Amino acid sequence: MIALEDIRTAAARIEGNVRRTPMIAAGNLKTPLAGGVDLTLKLELLQVTGSFKARGATNRLLSLDPAALAHGIVTASGGNHGIATARAGFMAGVPATIFLPTNASPAKIEKLRAWGAATRIVGSAWHESNEAAQAFVRETGAVYFHPFADPAVVAGQGTVGLEILDQMPDVTTVLVAMGGGGLVSGVATAIKALAPHVRVVGIEATGSPVLLRALEAGSNVALDRVTTSVATMACAKTDDRIFDIVRDKVDEIVLVDDDEMLRAARSLWFEMGLAADLSGAAAIAALAEDRVRIKQGERVCAIVCGAGPDAILG
Amino acid sequence: MIALEDIRTAAARIEGNVRRTPMIAAGNLKTPLAGGVDLTLKLELLQVTGSFKARGATNRLLSLDPAALAHGIVTASGGNHGIATARAGFMAGVPATIFLPTNASPAKIEKLRAWGAATRIVGSAWHESNEAAQAFVRETGAVYFHPFADPAVVAGQGTVGLEILDQMPDVTTVLVAMGGGGLVSGVATAIKALAPHVRVVGIEATGSPVLLRALEAGSNVALDRVTTSVATMACAKTDDRIFDIVRDKVDEIVLVDDDEMLRAARSLWFEMGLAADLSGAAAIAALAEDRVRIKQGERVCAIVCGAGPDAILG
Repeated sequence: MIALEDIRTAAARIEGNVRRTPMIAAGNLKTPLAGGVDLTLKLELLQVTGSFKARGATNRLLSLDPAALAHGIVTASGGNHGIATARAGFMAGVPATIFLPTNASPAKIEKLRAWGAATRIVGSAWHESNEAAQAFVRETGAVYFHPFADPAVVAGQGTVGLEILDQMPDVTTVLVAMGGGGLVSGVATAIKALAPHVRVVGIEATGSPVLLRALEAGSNVALDRVTTSVATMACAKTDDRIFDIVRDKVDEIVLVDDDEMLRAARSLWFEMGLAADLSGAAAIAALAEDRVRIKQGERVCAIVCGAGPDAILG
Repeated sequence: MIALEDIRTAAARIEGNVRRTPMIAAGNLKTPLAGGVDLTLKLELLQVTGSFKARGATNRLLSLDPAALAHGIVTASGGNHGIATARAGFMAGVPATIFLPTNASPAKIEKLRAWGAATRIVGSAWHESNEAAQAFVRETGAVYFHPFADPAVVAGQGTVGLEILDQMPDVTTVLVAMGGGGLVSGVATAIKALAPHVRVVGIEATGSPVLLRALEAGSNVALDRVTTSVATMACAKTDDRIFDIVRDKVDEIVLVDDDEMLRAARSLWFEMGLAADLSGAAAIAALAEDRVRIKQGERVCAIVCGAGPDAILG
């Protein structure tokens, strides 16, 4: 789907339009976040729009011929990708239309509108909103921004991996939350090309183990049902090309449940002053629950991939 | 009160027991936080305990003979200094007792207790809690940790200034929120010793302009009343030595009101994914409201000094 060169090109393309996010060591804690593990956090929750999704959407935007944007851009997403697409419209000065299911959170809708997007509430689940978004593409000629099944999006997310290697050259394991798998496949492509000894561990929600089950089945199968309440990690089926990358480049996938993520988000807030969303806390949950074997002397990086009020409100 | 050398000593003493907090450029915004100002944020809200106060309390703790700690430590504070003192007790393995007024927030009480401190609710205002804390010192022999009128505390806070100069050598103006003035006097002492051309601007709450009025009066006078609801910036009278430092080393003091701070905190949350408390947003409010004159080509650093849920709950 993509190679290291695509990620490097993406990094050059989006530089100045997204943030190089800082890292911070998770030290001086009341209660260890992760046993005795030497843990550093990649603060991608401080990215423009509150998540890494701005990287992929910006790369998608800047990969297009400006003439292609004449009829605006569109996606279906009640989550961070929707906000990142709204911001892409703001950047380009073209209309962005975001289709959302009826259960989308009012806070997200407010944020989409704050970035200037038009919102359309259609259907009770994502696939219904997405059908409406596709119909909108056919009617209007707007450009569709897929949340993950798009090489430009995956290459953009992969720039997180380049930054981690640059900021933390002695990293041994990188932990990445997964939904459709766009972030982990971008990050794993970058890391396995440049530092193949670095382990990449994906974290899925127990209620949405789409890539774990697909790997077990040996092909990109769909889940019968998705039960996680963490919308940013919910995905019933991913893209075949993403399946291939994950199979070839991700060392391990572990599961965490919604309560474990909420506890981890509360720990991040108390210990680190970070307001992560539940997917942003997934990597911490995996360490706290001892789902990942970390050897003595390892240096672990957890990507805190999104901001959210969960720990403060929940 | 203190000299550069005291701050350098403090930095060496507390290293490894507090965090070197990262900085991030406030770029790629929907709505400028600060007009066209080139603004970088010092993320001191990611400090242990959620604020810079951990620096001063840790320096105070590590400046003491361990034998002096036999009867524990005590302070009166419903805010960030109380949490930092609670954490000092946790670090040293000695009891910490925090006196609080009846209007202290349940969330702060919970955080104090999470760090292992005993809490005592006495009086309806800080000075009453503080009298009880002083009586506790006389009864028990516990060591009192003052929130600002203490050279070890001010030197600890000053380490923020050293880090800013190290991380951003071309800074031209540093913006610092003020309550009792401990942070600004430490930071200004460091900066004026090492980079006297760098301007240090203090920000007080309109409802607690203690140092602005004292400077106007030419002496360390008390305010008749304090009306801000921002507890971390409320102070009716500061220490004479802090007054002297502020008079000699702080270039300018500007005021922001509580609503302006709330708006700035909401902007930090929307634009940067940062959950700052209202004092943490004070410097941003001062820029947003155009209270500080910034010349073309300046590089401005705002200290985001504390974490809090205000923007998310408010």
